Amino acid sequence: MIKPSIPSGTRDFGTTDMLKRNYIFNTIKQNFELFGYSPIETPAMEKITTLTGKYGDEGDQLIFKILNSRIHESKQKDILLNEFKASLEFSKNSEELTEKALRYDLTVPFARYVVMNQHNLTFPFKRYQIQPVWRADRPQKGRYREFFQCDADVIGSDSLINELELINLMDKCFAELKIPVTLKFNNRKILSAIAQLINEPNKIVEITVAIDKLDKIGVDGVNKELQNSGVNPKAIEQLQPLINFKGNNLEKVSVLAQMLNNIEIGLKGIEEINFILNYFSEKNLKHILLELDITLARGLTYYTGTIFEAKANAGNLTSSILGGGRYDDLTGIFGLKNMSGVGISFGIDRIFDVMNELNVYPNSVNQISTTQLMFAHFGNDELTYCLNLANELRQQNINCEVYPDLAKIKKQFDFANKKQIPYVCVIGSEEMQSQLYTLKNLASGEQEKLSLNQIIQKLK
Amino acid sequence: MIKPSIPSGTRDFGTTDMLKRNYIFNTIKQNFELFGYSPIETPAMEKITTLTGKYGDEGDQLIFKILNSRIHESKQKDILLNEFKASLEFSKNSEELTEKALRYDLTVPFARYVVMNQHNLTFPFKRYQIQPVWRADRPQKGRYREFFQCDADVIGSDSLINELELINLMDKCFAELKIPVTLKFNNRKILSAIAQLINEPNKIVEITVAIDKLDKIGVDGVNKELQNSGVNPKAIEQLQPLINFKGNNLEKVSVLAQMLNNIEIGLKGIEEINFILNYFSEKNLKHILLELDITLARGLTYYTGTIFEAKANAGNLTSSILGGGRYDDLTGIFGLKNMSGVGISFGIDRIFDVMNELNVYPNSVNQISTTQLMFAHFGNDELTYCLNLANELRQQNINCEVYPDLAKIKKQFDFANKKQIPYVCVIGSEEMQSQLYTLKNLASGEQEKLSLNQIIQKLK
Repeated sequence: MIKPSIPSGTRDFGTTDMLKRNYIFNTIKQNFELFGYSPIETPAMEKITTLTGKYGDEGDQLIFKILNSRIHESKQKDILLNEFKASLEFSKNSEELTEKALRYDLTVPFARYVVMNQHNLTFPFKRYQIQPVWRADRPQKGRYREFFQCDADVIGSDSLINELELINLMDKCFAELKIPVTLKFNNRKILSAIAQLINEPNKIVEITVAIDKLDKIGVDGVNKELQNSGVNPKAIEQLQPLINFKGNNLEKVSVLAQMLNNIEIGLKGIEEINFILNYFSEKNLKHILLELDITLARGLTYYTGTIFEAKANAGNLTSSILGGGRYDDLTGIFGLKNMSGVGISFGIDRIFDVMNELNVYPNSVNQISTTQLMFAHFGNDELTYCLNLANELRQQNINCEVYPDLAKIKKQFDFANKKQIPYVCVIGSEEMQSQLYTLKNLASGEQEKLSLNQIIQKLK
Repeated sequence: MIKPSIPSGTRDFGTTDMLKRNYIFNTIKQNFELFGYSPIETPAMEKITTLTGKYGDEGDQLIFKILNSRIHESKQKDILLNEFKASLEFSKNSEELTEKALRYDLTVPFARYVVMNQHNLTFPFKRYQIQPVWRADRPQKGRYREFFQCDADVIGSDSLINELELINLMDKCFAELKIPVTLKFNNRKILSAIAQLINEPNKIVEITVAIDKLDKIGVDGVNKELQNSGVNPKAIEQLQPLINFKGNNLEKVSVLAQMLNNIEIGLKGIEEINFILNYFSEKNLKHILLELDITLARGLTYYTGTIFEAKANAGNLTSSILGGGRYDDLTGIFGLKNMSGVGISFGIDRIFDVMNELNVYPNSVNQISTTQLMFAHFGNDELTYCLNLANELRQQNINCEVYPDLAKIKKQFDFANKKQIPYVCVIGSEEMQSQLYTLKNLASGEQEKLSLNQIIQKLK
């Protein structure tokens, strides 16, 4: 007998965790709906052709591929064998072997959904989507192979009003979740302008990917990576003031404005940044700190305008718990051009870790059971009598259970105590006759004799 | 450019479907909690060794296997190639190629979870679990490759009280969902006794599998399948009265009692059936019809006592929308013996199809958007003013959105009409000055001038 286990990088969630996670999901979900986002869901499996080539070479390696079923029944085993040989050598996809894969994020499936349903959707289309994604990353603390994403996107509108609304949405969410957050933002147009300025317009991807790692690998690491990517030494030197950029939001903008004053796309980027800063200089954010960060790049290549990254300030952790940005051509990869959109993605699993560290859940969530009352009993007749009482309570929306076995009262109480059920009601022949029931509060030890209606009033 | 599509047997769910499905999920979830079941979740991927051998040979073929990642980086490509050759020939699993697979149901992962967490769980352990499962079945109407299961199980109690509670739970759920349902039940001990009676105790699986198909393939089909399974002709003859069994629940029991009066396990089965029938002869079910069906077998081999199957009576459809039963040794496959349990599984996707056919959703669910109010506007100043109004409404839990682009009022109204948003509020300079806003009901055309507080009162 092999001891059972689960794949590395995956997790089971018991009831305690589930109640906390559902609290996070529901808080975000309610806010998505308050801001006019509507739910959709897409399948866990996508055609492999939908996914590959969208996340860069590194990303492609992390896609979980599903082996085609019934290959042993194929009549073309020679072809299959050759395809397998080729995939061993070149890491090339073969649809003969795998034509489906697990989704890697929710953004590409969303783009695919929009293109497939373009004639039935009303644009600007605002959707939210809360589903797991899978990545064959090396598992480590805070990094899982199965994790939830929680995305809101609007597509078909290039108005910066959407950016303002998303910032308001994040502010409200993080305030309710009680997570202290710094929201860093930047604009990809600034990064494009900088690539032009230093005369390396074709190296924009390499430059953004390298600068994006500043927090992790430091200035020297970034410079080394720029060098390895073939960015010329003079350009790297020109980039230094930028990498060491300091000051408050307005100071940063004025330095940028001087630096990029001849570059059209840079001026456009500055205009967009100013639009956001102006709005929030008049209307204060309740909870989050908004910080312009010129080194923020976000790895993904499809962003073209504003980019976001939220970091939680939780004890020793400084964890990235949200990312997002504007893309002018996300659906272009599936043939639908000129659809500008902007979106954010909450990293639920990181948020869960941070909230556990801070312990900021409301009391109603800090439970190990959802049951409010348990019926204990002295024998068979009492047991079926309990079923009827329980059904009366359930009609009134009170969660309750009946200890199902014949057992000593002590054992029944032990059960309720272990599950931290708040109330126990013991049913004997006396209670059945008088129709008055002793309700015991397990935490305080208090007990009182009540009618069923009184119990209902008390627990509702 | 390839036209994007999704794998056959999978579905996207747009907002209209999501609202309906969430209504079904929430109704069942609330009832699970009312009856004392607590939520857990397990990963989509399980180790392949956890899954294979649990669903019969046919089931094993339907498990989606995940190709190990980075096989092109392996140093043992010869071994991989040989393993692949072998899997092509014998349909044998190779952990070198695939060590993970997508879960096929929620029952086996639940058993695995219980065994792994046995020292931290409080028994009897009641859990519910609502997650998708995947099967490489041939897709057809009502049969999908990705579908949701919605399971409640109690493990660690052999009390028949659990069966009564589950029947009460199903009654309450289907009443609230407004689906007319016949709940068929039987007891595997009866089937074992019959196999003994006809002197074919080793053919119990073949007999139950064949009888289980009575609805689909008829008496002749069942007899043919029995014959093909090697059940002897005399035994098949003896089975005939059983297959053609008629009468009400009590008549059926009395016939059974005569037929099986010398077979211990048969008498035990009859005792268990009578316990259920007696309870529900005194306490009427509100909604479902309870029908003893001696031909009900349920394909899965792990059932040992009561078995359930619910069928919806929906127009032309007679669809199986729930299954379940008692198992005395589910966790035995993972090394934990003597844990009796009983559970049910709602087939959410069939329930969704049936409810669409019957159109029994409450009005609040029959929507295409979750937004209650949209702000339309005449220009840039009005647009940012709308953002502030929207945020005030959101503080009061009113779902609203602001049309994000500058556009003619007609275009903005067209958008609200297409999304069936109930109310629109147009903001111009006059409204900004007077702080009185015209609220228009799009369905009735009525409009009234209100303050923000009056709007909040009206929409709350």
